[in-house]
Amino acid sequence: MPHIPLPEHLPGITGLLEYRLDTALPIRELTQILLRGESTLSPGERELIAALVSFRNETRFCTAAHTKAADLLLGENETAWAVKQNFETAPISEKMKALLAIAALTQKSGKAVTPEAIERARLAGATDSEIHDTVLITALFCLYNKYVDGLASVTPTDPAYYQRLGERITRGYLRPEGGFPVPPKP
Amino acid sequence: MPHIPLPEHLPGITGLLEYRLDTALPIRELTQILLRGESTLSPGERELIAALVSFRNETRFCTAAHTKAADLLLGENETAWAVKQNFETAPISEKMKALLAIAALTQKSGKAVTPEAIERARLAGATDSEIHDTVLITALFCLYNKYVDGLASVTPTDPAYYQRLGERITRGYLRPEGGFPVPPKP
Repeated sequence: MPHIPLPEHLPGITGLLEYRLDTALPIRELTQILLRGESTLSPGERELIAALVSFRNETRFCTAAHTKAADLLLGENETAWAVKQNFETAPISEKMKALLAIAALTQKSGKAVTPEAIERARLAGATDSEIHDTVLITALFCLYNKYVDGLASVTPTDPAYYQRLGERITRGYLRPEGGFPVPPKP
Repeated sequence: MPHIPLPEHLPGITGLLEYRLDTALPIRELTQILLRGESTLSPGERELIAALVSFRNETRFCTAAHTKAADLLLGENETAWAVKQNFETAPISEKMKALLAIAALTQKSGKAVTPEAIERARLAGATDSEIHDTVLITALFCLYNKYVDGLASVTPTDPAYYQRLGERITRGYLRPEGGFPVPPKP
């Protein structure tokens, strides 16, 4: 049972984002920019970071949602699974391995990120922006994971729920039915 | 030395927020709403949460900045210091002790927040909104702490720097020179 009253039909983060709409708006915008905005990392690659961080924080709701989003964006179900098991042996580029290593360190603590981890990413071709965004995406999903678990929101067990949520997420993170960039009716 | 090139005159979070302005905007807005928006917790009380979380994450820049902001808003230098040493014996209300206990648990892991910790806060008079905001402020400062440390931004050692930054923060978190709600010149 959630620690505060949340709408029963909105589990995980979804009820929290409806609980306080004014804080939800910048959270949604930040996520949209970082995960769907212009980037040399594909949306699927960025979802892999979100899935790995949520998995390591043991936040089941976010792990399931972003694994499914990665699967849908990548067009297969194997890479996200392999990344969670061991990203060093997953079927991804050396650059993505190095960026996921930075994400894994940041998830533990910002202080855990070493110059060697950064150097490895640079040698594999990562840009400053890609390193910056990897750290910020990780920090953002640590926010989400603490928000979702800290208030004990409900975690559905039906895989069909995450299929639907993953499909919605592939279309973006902004609030579906208005409340955001909807111009006032004339 | 920071892991990515950042403006030398902008240490800590300040250079990161200028490095990528589009992501900085919703981060600033979220902070403004949570720490300066309408609330039954005073801005000083909310800065105590930010200072405690940053202290426990060992992020020296954020700890110094939000300790100073709390000091300025509370009008004395003792409470924030005492909260960092041991909030259970600090000169604050029972409600604030219970909310800081929730913050301390959330800083470790969202999963660490127990029904007992929530019940303690309720018995001390905390509302659903105060519990919600405590968890979300904690999650937000974990984001900041990972962002600042994960990219190894510079931490000034001169206390005068934090005095100036603390004074600026007491006036809010939005970008000082435009870039946000500044209407176009006629």
